[in-house]
Amino acid sequence: MIVVMNHGAGEDDVARVTDKLKDMGYGVHLSSGENRTIIGVIGQRREEAAQTLEAMPEVEQVVFVTRPFKLAGREFHPDDTVIDLDKASIGGNELIFMAGPCAIEGEEQLLEAARAVKEAGARVFRGGAFKPRTSPYSFQGLEREGLQYLNQVRDETGLLIVTEVMDQFTVGEVAECADIIQVGARNMQNYYLLRELGKIRKPVLLKRGLSATIEEWLMAAEYILNGGNYQVILCERGIRTFEPYTRNTLDLSAVPLVKQLSHLPVIIDPSHGTGHSNLVPAMSKAAVAAGADGLMIEVHPNPQEALSDGPQSLTPQQFRQLINELKGVALSVGRLM
Amino acid sequence: MIVVMNHGAGEDDVARVTDKLKDMGYGVHLSSGENRTIIGVIGQRREEAAQTLEAMPEVEQVVFVTRPFKLAGREFHPDDTVIDLDKASIGGNELIFMAGPCAIEGEEQLLEAARAVKEAGARVFRGGAFKPRTSPYSFQGLEREGLQYLNQVRDETGLLIVTEVMDQFTVGEVAECADIIQVGARNMQNYYLLRELGKIRKPVLLKRGLSATIEEWLMAAEYILNGGNYQVILCERGIRTFEPYTRNTLDLSAVPLVKQLSHLPVIIDPSHGTGHSNLVPAMSKAAVAAGADGLMIEVHPNPQEALSDGPQSLTPQQFRQLINELKGVALSVGRLM
Amino acid sequence: MIVVMNHGAGEDDVARVTDKLKDMGYGVHLSSGENRTIIGVIGQRREEAAQTLEAMPEVEQVVFVTRPFKLAGREFHPDDTVIDLDKASIGGNELIFMAGPCAIEGEEQLLEAARAVKEAGARVFRGGAFKPRTSPYSFQGLEREGLQYLNQVRDETGLLIVTEVMDQFTVGEVAECADIIQVGARNMQNYYLLRELGKIRKPVLLKRGLSATIEEWLMAAEYILNGGNYQVILCERGIRTFEPYTRNTLDLSAVPLVKQLSHLPVIIDPSHGTGHSNLVPAMSKAAVAAGADGLMIEVHPNPQEALSDGPQSLTPQQFRQLINELKGVALSVGRLM
Amino acid sequence: MIVVMNHGAGEDDVARVTDKLKDMGYGVHLSSGENRTIIGVIGQRREEAAQTLEAMPEVEQVVFVTRPFKLAGREFHPDDTVIDLDKASIGGNELIFMAGPCAIEGEEQLLEAARAVKEAGARVFRGGAFKPRTSPYSFQGLEREGLQYLNQVRDETGLLIVTEVMDQFTVGEVAECADIIQVGARNMQNYYLLRELGKIRKPVLLKRGLSATIEEWLMAAEYILNGGNYQVILCERGIRTFEPYTRNTLDLSAVPLVKQLSHLPVIIDPSHGTGHSNLVPAMSKAAVAAGADGLMIEVHPNPQEALSDGPQSLTPQQFRQLINELKGVALSVGRLM
Repeated sequence: MIVVMNHGAGEDDVARVTDKLKDMGYGVHLSSGENRTIIGVIGQRREEAAQTLEAMPEVEQVVFVTRPFKLAGREFHPDDTVIDLDKASIGGNELIFMAGPCAIEGEEQLLEAARAVKEAGARVFRGGAFKPRTSPYSFQGLEREGLQYLNQVRDETGLLIVTEVMDQFTVGEVAECADIIQVGARNMQNYYLLRELGKIRKPVLLKRGLSATIEEWLMAAEYILNGGNYQVILCERGIRTFEPYTRNTLDLSAVPLVKQLSHLPVIIDPSHGTGHSNLVPAMSKAAVAAGADGLMIEVHPNPQEALSDGPQSLTPQQFRQLINELKGVALSVGRLM
Repeated sequence: MIVVMNHGAGEDDVARVTDKLKDMGYGVHLSSGENRTIIGVIGQRREEAAQTLEAMPEVEQVVFVTRPFKLAGREFHPDDTVIDLDKASIGGNELIFMAGPCAIEGEEQLLEAARAVKEAGARVFRGGAFKPRTSPYSFQGLEREGLQYLNQVRDETGLLIVTEVMDQFTVGEVAECADIIQVGARNMQNYYLLRELGKIRKPVLLKRGLSATIEEWLMAAEYILNGGNYQVILCERGIRTFEPYTRNTLDLSAVPLVKQLSHLPVIIDPSHGTGHSNLVPAMSKAAVAAGADGLMIEVHPNPQEALSDGPQSLTPQQFRQLINELKGVALSVGRLM
Repeated sequence: MIVVMNHGAGEDDVARVTDKLKDMGYGVHLSSGENRTIIGVIGQRREEAAQTLEAMPEVEQVVFVTRPFKLAGREFHPDDTVIDLDKASIGGNELIFMAGPCAIEGEEQLLEAARAVKEAGARVFRGGAFKPRTSPYSFQGLEREGLQYLNQVRDETGLLIVTEVMDQFTVGEVAECADIIQVGARNMQNYYLLRELGKIRKPVLLKRGLSATIEEWLMAAEYILNGGNYQVILCERGIRTFEPYTRNTLDLSAVPLVKQLSHLPVIIDPSHGTGHSNLVPAMSKAAVAAGADGLMIEVHPNPQEALSDGPQSLTPQQFRQLINELKGVALSVGRLM
Repeated sequence: MIVVMNHGAGEDDVARVTDKLKDMGYGVHLSSGENRTIIGVIGQRREEAAQTLEAMPEVEQVVFVTRPFKLAGREFHPDDTVIDLDKASIGGNELIFMAGPCAIEGEEQLLEAARAVKEAGARVFRGGAFKPRTSPYSFQGLEREGLQYLNQVRDETGLLIVTEVMDQFTVGEVAECADIIQVGARNMQNYYLLRELGKIRKPVLLKRGLSATIEEWLMAAEYILNGGNYQVILCERGIRTFEPYTRNTLDLSAVPLVKQLSHLPVIIDPSHGTGHSNLVPAMSKAAVAAGADGLMIEVHPNPQEALSDGPQSLTPQQFRQLINELKGVALSVGRLM
């Protein structure tokens, strides 16, 4: 940390702050510039310490020089994390495709979608049993019944299952069914849920919050890692901006940036990221070219009958075509699929 | 709803869409412009119906002409909601002040803060027992122990208590202690929590999410109202923008806007809204002048020792002075305090 | 400035950077933490120097500890700037009201508006002769003819005139007519224009850009001040956010913040700031309570016939009522009007 | 356009609005829903008409059903615009690469950069003679002297030249030197400049404003097209969001979106879009995969000595390597280079 003193702070002011720092167990280096004194603080970054210092009237600001994430960061963990599942690995050389409908609507719809995405080349099937919905008057998901259908999908197709968990108390139940447990954007900072997920030993797909900075996103991962669960997959799904033509603004620069800052795998959800199925193919190719480890795509046997997010869902045919088109892109950046 | 057909959509396309609408139980009015046909849809707004239509290739967009909130809206509930508590009412002519520390740190700190804010004129005491924190390495709150201290505060000072609930399973426990139950910004779209709060009969203070639109905020209130709990207080606490000099951008225009759209009371939290204690007095006055029904302000006996949010906390003296200065502003807009 | 070295930077790396700094004429203070070395740089802040350093692979980031504005800042100019005009002063104890239509549409409309706003208590008349419009198919302003009508307004009513200048080449012409020259939000970073305005000796009203940070806004003022024109009035008019219910989000916290950082007067434009005339009264009161030095408000004799921005314009009656209601608010924060 | 009447608007209210519409020359279709009447308006979209209507108290909102851009839109111009230059074409099957330093610093630097980017495969050389800078204390560009150096570059290397114009009065001068005239992000809504560019017959590279919506960007293009200059190239260079780790958020979804809405070519500037040279390669690949027609990349012989934007500049070696790596990506999406 660096403490920047106020313009006009005198020796007494500086002494008061350095005393405080020493009380807190920090070492200090003074550096007096033309207009200001700055204090280099030797010791671990602590948010509380920074706030204490910023509340002192002599202090103008406290600047952090280290990132707040430790376990999620690449500094002390230079090698990529590769998550090995039974039939797939995530974060290695091979790309992973997760596909399926936004919401589970019934047994038939689900199995039809699952067969189609499997045939097209997906390894992981997605489908929401528990659905967070903006309106209380919207379809809220089949909940437990939906999990049963997902079990059928796995039994029949052999696809791996990813599905969303909505609170800490259903983690066990969802973990029984899912191969990968998804944390939705609205729950990225649900810390009770994150801590519970730190206790299990299954991969967690952590979606970036709608207006979460990359630092906050990695700190949410840090909660899970800090609990002892090292299998975290990050998923960028668009951030909220002023642009109204797209549902969200897909922040693809998060891919190379996360790859620099962190060892965790990162995948892209172009369906929520754009909100329009006709933008999904271009953004999927862009995501692979940018270095994403995989894609999560909404596919529905009949988007016009979908109970949720039809406008952003591909048909199975469109998905198959996209997978075919992605092969060349993957090859061009040295990835297998 | 209005369905806007694609440029170039022919009679067959229009027929396909109107058939679909009729299948869904809607009435239709066709209107053919120079470049496009639009279909006026007669019947209840339904998000699912809109998505179904938008997924049809003949349709360019679906436009809603009614707001999605019903119970929270003023259209069918023109009179202001006034929440009557034992020693205060919220949403009527009188302003309400809620004050206290961000986090409960111990018995002594809490009682000292409580006596100070009571003396200064606050009716409601705020203090967090359960704390959502960005970093797993930060102080996470005293939890149940904190609730006990809050009980002591009420017993000793007679202040009403507002405190945050973090999940649906502690609603009962928090409701036993709190006179008003707070939903934090990160939980504004935690629908399980909102539904649980719909079942109780205590006032809920619903903070606006960091990047929630006003419509989404009112829809979150709708979840609670829809459960049968009509005592919802809205609290604006700053939204996330590109401006780095303030922690958040306090959106004061939410006050007159919510007053037009909704009958629910709305208060302002200038402490989180700005992040700097020296901006709190000016923004508190602005909030009252804009028509807010009250304020929620962080006050700490010693901000430099606070375990959370010291830089944005007022000292008791600063709070007392602010309350004094607010009297004239309140009077100038016809409010009592 | 502070240079933060990369994690793992060795002595050689540090030496390379300190040599570079010394070459650039800076003094250095080294401070070695547990994980990183930081270098305190003694000397003037220079953006170019920071960029040079950031381009070095050994450097993680460069942090500024001083603000980039000098002339606009309060540090070296602690007293408020008060701009004295013939019949009014801006930035002192008295509030200033600027009112009038968005665009000048004709002689009659303008004089009618001018008489009305004068009678209601405005000292300054606003009206756009040169209009920046998003669409090439919209009304683009009366240009020179409009300036003549403004001259008539001044002659007949004695009101001071504020009007927008669109480029550096019409500064002279506009300055002949206007008592205060307005720089619109879209031109806040038109540096040629700002430099030209630095050469004249008339007050400049500098609107904040739609997505300008407060720092960038003060740097735009710095361009004018650096040219020798010290009469700059800042005007907040809403920033672009994700919220669709308002045209912009009026950032009222800019008022107390600018007052801390700078000695320049700051006024508020609640008409553009909200986009809805029915939000203007509440936000005007809030602005005065927050400490603004004045208001700029759109008033049109007949908003339903306005060629520009009718939905956000008050009628003369509404404006008169607002001015009456503002008196108490002004009094409550110790301001005259 | 569609006019949505207020809840509770009666027959008289509707009659007043339809009368107004007929006065303005519009046809009307009434459609009465359960809660509201909506009026389908037949005739050309006009912003002024919409504002007039929105200023009527009986009207809740006016909704546009057509896009405001006509000449820039694909509806009436379905085929892609391809701009043929002497040695390159833009918007066709072949990708175009524009590269060079942010600012022209001197003859030697410029020629060195030009030779390097030519050798690597760029067809167009970029370099700023006129520089918009946030601070008046930063290097402001070599201006006319810089244009001379650009002439030398063309003469010696045969590269095409793109350089920025800052106001309408230097359009002629810049057009003499440049093969493509660039409008910077800060000038995207400088309408005098856009109109002047409508009068010339040289390609214009129109950068998206920092917080411009895609609609506003296409409307800026509309100004140029409306003047008779049909050679407009759109360039996405990042938008302003809350994310601090990148300088801007590169909105790659603009590529497929603009391709749907418009016939104009669109290229990507990953240097400004990210602000960090180490993110440029990944985002360049992503841009090509998303369907961009080309790239504009900052290349400096020695980024650590650059007077502007060193941290986001590639070295010539890095640029050469990137061009090599792009070949496979281009091939995979059917583009030549």
